[in-house]
Amino acid sequence: MNIPKLESSLAFLMEADRLKNLYRQTYTSTDDLPPMPDGSNVSKPYPRRENDAEHSFSLALFTAVLAEYSNEPIDVLKTMKMVLVHDIVEIDAGDTYCYDMAGNSTKAAREKAAADRIFALLPPEQEKEFRGLWEEFETGETAEAKFSAAMDRVQPFLLNLHRNGISWKEHGVRFDQVEKRASRIAAGSETLHSYIMEKLLDARDRGILPD
Amino acid sequence: MNIPKLESSLAFLMEADRLKNLYRQTYTSTDDLPPMPDGSNVSKPYPRRENDAEHSFSLALFTAVLAEYSNEPIDVLKTMKMVLVHDIVEIDAGDTYCYDMAGNSTKAAREKAAADRIFALLPPEQEKEFRGLWEEFETGETAEAKFSAAMDRVQPFLLNLHRNGISWKEHGVRFDQVEKRASRIAAGSETLHSYIMEKLLDARDRGILPD
Repeated sequence: MNIPKLESSLAFLMEADRLKNLYRQTYTSTDDLPPMPDGSNVSKPYPRRENDAEHSFSLALFTAVLAEYSNEPIDVLKTMKMVLVHDIVEIDAGDTYCYDMAGNSTKAAREKAAADRIFALLPPEQEKEFRGLWEEFETGETAEAKFSAAMDRVQPFLLNLHRNGISWKEHGVRFDQVEKRASRIAAGSETLHSYIMEKLLDARDRGILPD
Repeated sequence: MNIPKLESSLAFLMEADRLKNLYRQTYTSTDDLPPMPDGSNVSKPYPRRENDAEHSFSLALFTAVLAEYSNEPIDVLKTMKMVLVHDIVEIDAGDTYCYDMAGNSTKAAREKAAADRIFALLPPEQEKEFRGLWEEFETGETAEAKFSAAMDRVQPFLLNLHRNGISWKEHGVRFDQVEKRASRIAAGSETLHSYIMEKLLDARDRGILPD
């Protein structure tokens, strides 16, 4: 048994556990909070944001269930691995809200440094595989990267729609910004793009997304 | 575009989102809580239990990274899909702590009813696939089911060890109970079983797990 190699893999997995404490702008579909150690609940529940681990769980399950809607055939296993690690650099670099222009200008450098540190925890062969998947996702050119990027937009859109646009409202996001962000879904899945656009237009008509 | 079929898939995915609010006995590796909508934090952080979505995220990533340690060759994609849905019946049936004997006596019937309802949300072909994966996990006879069961033990053991046995202490769990539960890891991975047993023996020696 090659213990140092196994311990490298486990060190990476324990580091990835920190994704559970990185909260996004999107809210989960329901509001319960973790119970206190004595079994009681926090007195005042509040709309609960989802964290990166939960988001990545969703994207992996979305990929497993919706792969048939990809424009091009995809390697589903590769795509699921890609979405599981696509946000892992946020452990060091933090979550940059997609409509935050200032934050996005420094995002690439911060995330590159994070990737250098975090993927190096893995044994060399796996470092190459998983860092490669992350870079492929960032570059966005392969069928798998395009479908992953589509999932990364479809999932929060659906949660936001389910929540009547709560995080769009909080950030004063308008229909044209969301429409622009949704446009990248089409590169991964024309079908899902059409479906989401219908829902977004409906949200605009209902006043959930201001024009 | 077959909208009813797509909407069935999305209904299942939105239902699965509820796994984010089902809390387990195991604690995450760190303590942060979701921020309040105004950006402030809950005044008193407390050790935070992980939920089923986070646990399933971890098992999928563990599977992707540790598959080479399986005793038998496994279909990694199938195994990742299996771990993503292995706890989905808890949406209706709740989480039954593995050392709770009373709860475990009624667990099978409650989970069967939950599977009937939840997997039926999917389009027929996918219902068959995903329900099949859940049943295969429960039966525990294939290489994929054995490896999934191993992941389902290795991951919480590692978190508990990282937390100095916090949830074992809370429930008065002893070394021999944990050892028995760990024994099923060997059916999926002899290597991981040996590694975990070393860590458990060390935890006993350090007084984290009472004899």
